[in-house]
Amino acid sequence: MSNFNIDYDREDRLGFPEIIFGTSKRIEDLILIINDYITRDKNVLVTKLQKKKAKKLLKYFPNSFYDTLSGIFILKKTSIVSKNSEVAIISGGSSDIHIVNEVFYTLSFLGVKSEKINDVGVAGINRLMNRINDLKKYDVLIVIAGFEGALPTVVGGLLPQPIIAVPTDVGYGVSKNGKTALNSMLSSCANGITVVNINNGYGAAMAAVRILNQFNK
Amino acid sequence: MSNFNIDYDREDRLGFPEIIFGTSKRIEDLILIINDYITRDKNVLVTKLQKKKAKKLLKYFPNSFYDTLSGIFILKKTSIVSKNSEVAIISGGSSDIHIVNEVFYTLSFLGVKSEKINDVGVAGINRLMNRINDLKKYDVLIVIAGFEGALPTVVGGLLPQPIIAVPTDVGYGVSKNGKTALNSMLSSCANGITVVNINNGYGAAMAAVRILNQFNK
Amino acid sequence: MSNFNIDYDREDRLGFPEIIFGTSKRIEDLILIINDYITRDKNVLVTKLQKKKAKKLLKYFPNSFYDTLSGIFILKKTSIVSKNSEVAIISGGSSDIHIVNEVFYTLSFLGVKSEKINDVGVAGINRLMNRINDLKKYDVLIVIAGFEGALPTVVGGLLPQPIIAVPTDVGYGVSKNGKTALNSMLSSCANGITVVNINNGYGAAMAAVRILNQFNK
Amino acid sequence: MSNFNIDYDREDRLGFPEIIFGTSKRIEDLILIINDYITRDKNVLVTKLQKKKAKKLLKYFPNSFYDTLSGIFILKKTSIVSKNSEVAIISGGSSDIHIVNEVFYTLSFLGVKSEKINDVGVAGINRLMNRINDLKKYDVLIVIAGFEGALPTVVGGLLPQPIIAVPTDVGYGVSKNGKTALNSMLSSCANGITVVNINNGYGAAMAAVRILNQFNK
Amino acid sequence: MSNFNIDYDREDRLGFPEIIFGTSKRIEDLILIINDYITRDKNVLVTKLQKKKAKKLLKYFPNSFYDTLSGIFILKKTSIVSKNSEVAIISGGSSDIHIVNEVFYTLSFLGVKSEKINDVGVAGINRLMNRINDLKKYDVLIVIAGFEGALPTVVGGLLPQPIIAVPTDVGYGVSKNGKTALNSMLSSCANGITVVNINNGYGAAMAAVRILNQFNK
Amino acid sequence: MSNFNIDYDREDRLGFPEIIFGTSKRIEDLILIINDYITRDKNVLVTKLQKKKAKKLLKYFPNSFYDTLSGIFILKKTSIVSKNSEVAIISGGSSDIHIVNEVFYTLSFLGVKSEKINDVGVAGINRLMNRINDLKKYDVLIVIAGFEGALPTVVGGLLPQPIIAVPTDVGYGVSKNGKTALNSMLSSCANGITVVNINNGYGAAMAAVRILNQFNK
Amino acid sequence: MSNFNIDYDREDRLGFPEIIFGTSKRIEDLILIINDYITRDKNVLVTKLQKKKAKKLLKYFPNSFYDTLSGIFILKKTSIVSKNSEVAIISGGSSDIHIVNEVFYTLSFLGVKSEKINDVGVAGINRLMNRINDLKKYDVLIVIAGFEGALPTVVGGLLPQPIIAVPTDVGYGVSKNGKTALNSMLSSCANGITVVNINNGYGAAMAAVRILNQFNK
Amino acid sequence: MSNFNIDYDREDRLGFPEIIFGTSKRIEDLILIINDYITRDKNVLVTKLQKKKAKKLLKYFPNSFYDTLSGIFILKKTSIVSKNSEVAIISGGSSDIHIVNEVFYTLSFLGVKSEKINDVGVAGINRLMNRINDLKKYDVLIVIAGFEGALPTVVGGLLPQPIIAVPTDVGYGVSKNGKTALNSMLSSCANGITVVNINNGYGAAMAAVRILNQFNK
Repeated sequence: MSNFNIDYDREDRLGFPEIIFGTSKRIEDLILIINDYITRDKNVLVTKLQKKKAKKLLKYFPNSFYDTLSGIFILKKTSIVSKNSEVAIISGGSSDIHIVNEVFYTLSFLGVKSEKINDVGVAGINRLMNRINDLKKYDVLIVIAGFEGALPTVVGGLLPQPIIAVPTDVGYGVSKNGKTALNSMLSSCANGITVVNINNGYGAAMAAVRILNQFNK
Repeated sequence: MSNFNIDYDREDRLGFPEIIFGTSKRIEDLILIINDYITRDKNVLVTKLQKKKAKKLLKYFPNSFYDTLSGIFILKKTSIVSKNSEVAIISGGSSDIHIVNEVFYTLSFLGVKSEKINDVGVAGINRLMNRINDLKKYDVLIVIAGFEGALPTVVGGLLPQPIIAVPTDVGYGVSKNGKTALNSMLSSCANGITVVNINNGYGAAMAAVRILNQFNK
Repeated sequence: MSNFNIDYDREDRLGFPEIIFGTSKRIEDLILIINDYITRDKNVLVTKLQKKKAKKLLKYFPNSFYDTLSGIFILKKTSIVSKNSEVAIISGGSSDIHIVNEVFYTLSFLGVKSEKINDVGVAGINRLMNRINDLKKYDVLIVIAGFEGALPTVVGGLLPQPIIAVPTDVGYGVSKNGKTALNSMLSSCANGITVVNINNGYGAAMAAVRILNQFNK
Repeated sequence: MSNFNIDYDREDRLGFPEIIFGTSKRIEDLILIINDYITRDKNVLVTKLQKKKAKKLLKYFPNSFYDTLSGIFILKKTSIVSKNSEVAIISGGSSDIHIVNEVFYTLSFLGVKSEKINDVGVAGINRLMNRINDLKKYDVLIVIAGFEGALPTVVGGLLPQPIIAVPTDVGYGVSKNGKTALNSMLSSCANGITVVNINNGYGAAMAAVRILNQFNK
Repeated sequence: MSNFNIDYDREDRLGFPEIIFGTSKRIEDLILIINDYITRDKNVLVTKLQKKKAKKLLKYFPNSFYDTLSGIFILKKTSIVSKNSEVAIISGGSSDIHIVNEVFYTLSFLGVKSEKINDVGVAGINRLMNRINDLKKYDVLIVIAGFEGALPTVVGGLLPQPIIAVPTDVGYGVSKNGKTALNSMLSSCANGITVVNINNGYGAAMAAVRILNQFNK
Repeated sequence: MSNFNIDYDREDRLGFPEIIFGTSKRIEDLILIINDYITRDKNVLVTKLQKKKAKKLLKYFPNSFYDTLSGIFILKKTSIVSKNSEVAIISGGSSDIHIVNEVFYTLSFLGVKSEKINDVGVAGINRLMNRINDLKKYDVLIVIAGFEGALPTVVGGLLPQPIIAVPTDVGYGVSKNGKTALNSMLSSCANGITVVNINNGYGAAMAAVRILNQFNK
Repeated sequence: MSNFNIDYDREDRLGFPEIIFGTSKRIEDLILIINDYITRDKNVLVTKLQKKKAKKLLKYFPNSFYDTLSGIFILKKTSIVSKNSEVAIISGGSSDIHIVNEVFYTLSFLGVKSEKINDVGVAGINRLMNRINDLKKYDVLIVIAGFEGALPTVVGGLLPQPIIAVPTDVGYGVSKNGKTALNSMLSSCANGITVVNINNGYGAAMAAVRILNQFNK
Repeated sequence: MSNFNIDYDREDRLGFPEIIFGTSKRIEDLILIINDYITRDKNVLVTKLQKKKAKKLLKYFPNSFYDTLSGIFILKKTSIVSKNSEVAIISGGSSDIHIVNEVFYTLSFLGVKSEKINDVGVAGINRLMNRINDLKKYDVLIVIAGFEGALPTVVGGLLPQPIIAVPTDVGYGVSKNGKTALNSMLSSCANGITVVNINNGYGAAMAAVRILNQFNK
């Protein structure tokens, strides 16, 4: 009896494959699962993988890729044609870069082009104001912030596109672990903002893909 | 100096007008604000308005509409052409109807057609399974649930469209006030689900409108 | 043995008199305390007083004043010379008016002139941007907001004065009771913002008076 | 005066022996306690034992067994006849395996046969649907899940047996530490589900044994 | 399109019918639902129904029954043969009687005999000790307590049967709303106790029925 | 079968009788219980009794006493000789009087003399400093405070007697419901302070009686 | 300007000296403070001192004592005559021994004799019942428990002495960090129990000393 | 495209430069940012920098300064003329020294003189009382405390200046992580105290600078 029961049908059903949550899996199980994917000629995306385990996987699977900041591990056999639609990844501070990269690499894995607009937090709002016209060209805005999480509210009041807000665990005291940023985004007085779990960069990317797939098919 | 400072430019900027949060405003202030909208030939949407105050507004503004369940108040001078795209409003139990209606009337106010699929909670999952094929035709799925909030997870595993999950305050004990449903939706193991605040039906509707506006323009 | 033990020396020691917290005191005790103040020729400020009890006090003390929105009750025998310094009371939405008024009347009671800048919430940030130059002339900024509480962060990034942020209990779902606005203000990425308790308008006013007294003596 | 006061009478009274909570006991105390059990010809089950301490115990007690994933340590002198009744251990994801194993080995220690049905989480509900008929043959269902903890609700809506739900600490953001899965299971709209503490696999096993003992005697 | 989507198949699937959660349903919807049940010759159990709405239902459905303490409403057309197995409902204090009755009437509705053992809280543990022998004859023990919720732990250390613990909202300060009793029961050092949501008397009853059905068929 | 199971032996065992928690008991049950006490020639103390129910009891039991502020109801048949030891009841503000009275009347019911020292909160610390010498003569100090709950810390640093701290629910924002005062007292940097539940005035009185009984017997 | 400002007058004022909280002080500061105590011929008690820092202190101060389990460090120059009164230290499980020892050594440091009654948790209540008569001879009972913290409630229902309850951080899931045990003790239905902070063994010891000092002088 | 977007205009706009939050930035990014500051002839302040990363920076930038206790890193090219105004940094215990230093070095970086008044916690209130007259000469009081956080309340009742309260993470049990000290300061019954986030020493310093800049220009 196997410990795994992979949902291979997911890609046909939903338009994206099953993703592997890396944090709490053992290295020996990860190898078994990835080999199973390879056998079926599937691409592999592992999220939130610790460095120590990644090192072993990189050795074991020579053509794989790992981003230290985000913990994203990718093994991509088939090339995916990029879609025309584009996503902007807007972040408040350079400390949020681990989640910016998680979004970026997940989108890239799923064949979606995106651009990073870093470090435009609202404490120096001119930095954002200068970029507003540029931002109008993207189809989906993913807005990432820690601390008080005010950035999606300001963006949401200035731009009309679909907005997916991602709270991060950057902060200390009452904003430690991201709860304040999360609650702030959920309470936003800017209308029509949606939110994902704290640090859930790959979830935000997939929400963007659900939108793009629906309208670009 | 006035107490109000209405953002009349919002419709041009974002594609939907400023909405009035009714709960904590006094009746005399609501009348002032609504008259100001009327003068400028704008439609009015008030959310989460208490019955007692609604009664007075209905008398004061003869052509207005009020939904007791959701607390939505509408005063619509101009007729809005309905968009082709459609939204499904899926709910777990008949106790969630106050939020189902908040979504429904907000979408209707913004000119978007939607359909209600009530009472398909996962405790009798066959009810949902029977509807899966029907649900494939909608562009956006808004999924509403209280208690343990499992419905968006199951829907998200079965259908590929953009999903906006709305937790409700239906429940008692640990699920009182909707925190459990909210956290459950944010933690969903189904990928790419986005979430709005507890009972934030009109926010979910506006998130759907952001998506539809972006791709139907 | 009396139930009261009033700190009459406070005005000499701190520059402002003892304030009476009205919410949990019985009407008969309030009358006793106020009469005691009158006997000593002191002005009286009662905060967060319920309407029902206020009605009785207004009858009992003919020259008294009561503001229904904020629950402030004032009985002012001696005239107080207004200070030159001025305070701006900036608020996010017209729902925050109960706390705006609590600040305004407390400052007025303590002889400080202030001006209200209502309804400049960050969902329509142009409303605030238009006022920035005006706001430079005030010595202290008191910034009031509910929901996600982002306003003090944006103000703090644009203006150099002392800023006292007041979270309000306006909101629902995760922002019910003001905890989210409070935590958001405490976590602000704008530097040097200070915060008071949820709905503590009179505390913010007194913090402003501590600053003004220190530098205008 | 000894530091220990073991409840040797428990097996006669309750049908299962006292279990040793390993996490916060020192290695020297564990050895003393286990030797005391051996002297009285009792079997030993230590739960949630850290690897480092387990290594020492394995050396000290040559015939002992330790499962790294669950932290279960067993020293079984007498052979226990297996009961006919069977328990199904159903889990949402392969990350929950540490608790699956805690249930499995505790049941095995207490002489109860069980089977593991891994990785049937509701994001790919077909995996569970395919197993429903098989699952009807078990007397008790122990259902284990982390993240949003929706699995017991779906199982509880499909199957009539006694269900013991075990939330795990698998997740991050709002589901970190298992609180969301716990609250979700307690709030389940599927009727008659019971719940144990987060990660309390051995408690679930013992609850199953209480049921089996009552009806198989 | 109806607002209701009743799971009539549930009784065949699970051995008990769908139960109606009364708190958040409107009286007009309850009447519609109940009439629908009557048409199909089903018994009706409504839980947590407010007095005001119950009065109207009692008038509308002449043979119905309502228990003021628990808010249970029953309309029972067909007579159900009582099972031989019995359940003990043990409670800590006479303040818990609303939940004791919810368990009692739900069991009675489902054809299960039970007995109430009230007011045996651990502050006077002799009251429980005197009943231990009597308690050995029941197949399932449902143990109900508010405040610190210690009763299930003591019962669980003394008796071997399946135990379902129900925390109640009786208490004040830190035990207000039942969270302390819930956490205390989940943390119990007595092994094999299972727990349901705060005040979830009918859920405990149904968990007992799942056990009894499994072994008495 | 009765709903009540009174612990009449408690007075012999512990030195004080069973106390009746009034809040969640129905008036008809209270009358039954009190009559049962009367039959056995016992004194009756009901705590936290609502006014409406108290009115009925006062009519029913002519010689009974009720304190509106604290909700204490007393029916005292036998006269109790006062002990020589004395307790000081020190409170921060006149808003805490409901709990001051609960302590006072419970002590009085149990035959212990006490004195109230009201309104000596630390915002005007001179009020407390002036009383320090007087306070040295009491055997036990019960210190009551809401808001930030700092009073027991200051008292504990100045006086050597046993100190029982009682947090009250007086406050708003983060100190609403007394959690802040409770945590502040538990964290006190003054050594050897003990704490009871929020608003648990009668518990503090009984803790004092446990001390006095132990040393005055 | 020194970093320290020791309260040398405390012993005269309160009957016990200032205690040093070791956890967050640097080793070099600890040495300075202890030397300062030595110069003034005072005994030294450091609490919650980490092993690594203790090792250095033990080397530096040759006659000092350190208990690894509790983190208590003692340097006692003068011999203290033991008081006749005695304290019982009652604990639920052998995992609580770190706090048992903190109480024991603090009492010993302050010249008070105590006895440990370990491992009498309520899951095997006979172990406590067997000791009740022995326990009657102590003047103060300190009762220590983690997990669900039920032990003080049971002890408080059986014995009349002053009881100081100490919650510990032993547990996992909802009882991790001791919050459940704390709330359970504060909510105890046994009357007159007082509580100290989680793991605050030395505070409990000092509360006992306050009682003993008051009555034995 | 760079990862950084520094707000170089901040000093002109607000009177103090952008500060670098060190905790979550990588060493290679810190070096890039600092070099960028150097190029523009700006002073550099990094807060909450871990020791390991500081060591590398100290080597890389030879004239830099690092304070181990507070984690403050400073690289100051230009000399700043000290302002006449002075700030008092008052702290409760010597364990708070990490935050005392964060305030001290931030003020020093911004050209403001300050003095440390350490270890005057309210458990030995005489230590504070002896310093009251000295404290009258400072323009702003920054009051720092962990555990129950009572110090700002006592200071606020005795002195009239602007007070900025800083809760620290010093404590354990319910005061672990500083939440209790924070809530206690926000709830203070002393009027006009303002509060910053837990451990936010540099924020308090900047709030003081906002005050001093406003009145000393």
